[in-house]
Amino acid sequence: MTRDDLPEVINLADKLGRFADAWNPRIIGQLNGQDIRLARLEGPFIWHAHEREDEAFLVLEGSLRMELRDDAGTETARTLVPGELIIVPRGLEHRPVATPTCSVLLFEPTSTLNTGTAGGERTRAELDRI
Amino acid sequence: MTRDDLPEVINLADKLGRFADAWNPRIIGQLNGQDIRLARLEGPFIWHAHEREDEAFLVLEGSLRMELRDDAGTETARTLVPGELIIVPRGLEHRPVATPTCSVLLFEPTSTLNTGTAGGERTRAELDRI
Repeated sequence: MTRDDLPEVINLADKLGRFADAWNPRIIGQLNGQDIRLARLEGPFIWHAHEREDEAFLVLEGSLRMELRDDAGTETARTLVPGELIIVPRGLEHRPVATPTCSVLLFEPTSTLNTGTAGGERTRAELDRI
Repeated sequence: MTRDDLPEVINLADKLGRFADAWNPRIIGQLNGQDIRLARLEGPFIWHAHEREDEAFLVLEGSLRMELRDDAGTETARTLVPGELIIVPRGLEHRPVATPTCSVLLFEPTSTLNTGTAGGERTRAELDRI
């Protein structure tokens, strides 16, 4: 690796300052087939699951309620504040709800679609790298 | 997934409060063959590289100087404060130096040895999960 290719410091606040729209994750780094993404969330998302990907959410700002649906169809919610994370395993139905807004760091495979197998109009098939 | 198996919230400060020793990473979560680890660092580590693993360091507390050695053998340092991360790609010689202490969150494959291919007495072959 030449000197010009050496990795740079990534400042999360700086990256968050580069976009304002909610539910449109940005890629800020990639490693081992995984993305590190940042997203701004606002209000409720949709229920969905990922068939093959586990997904970690680390809250940076605001408050996030992660709604989870178990095999019996019962819903349980976890509330996260800055400095807290949750790992949603593949196959688990979940719905992130920002209360009312939050910023999150996501760690998940590059293949992960934001709406999982649910699809629909809120799907972001192509993510910008910032 | 039954209700009892649903993921819990992981609080980083709570986890950091469970250990005090430096250079002994703890696993706080696993996903997609990757670990999320926490570590306390103090002073300099050793120069090393990972043959097959890229490694991300997110600084939570304190200050970290990441020394990097390019193919020409020239050393360059990056300084990180809380809210900053760096991705050290596989193969790149690096030496983390806490100045004088820091806490970091690590994202890296479960296979990653802390000393990489350098080995030696500071290797932690078995990591505790907390």
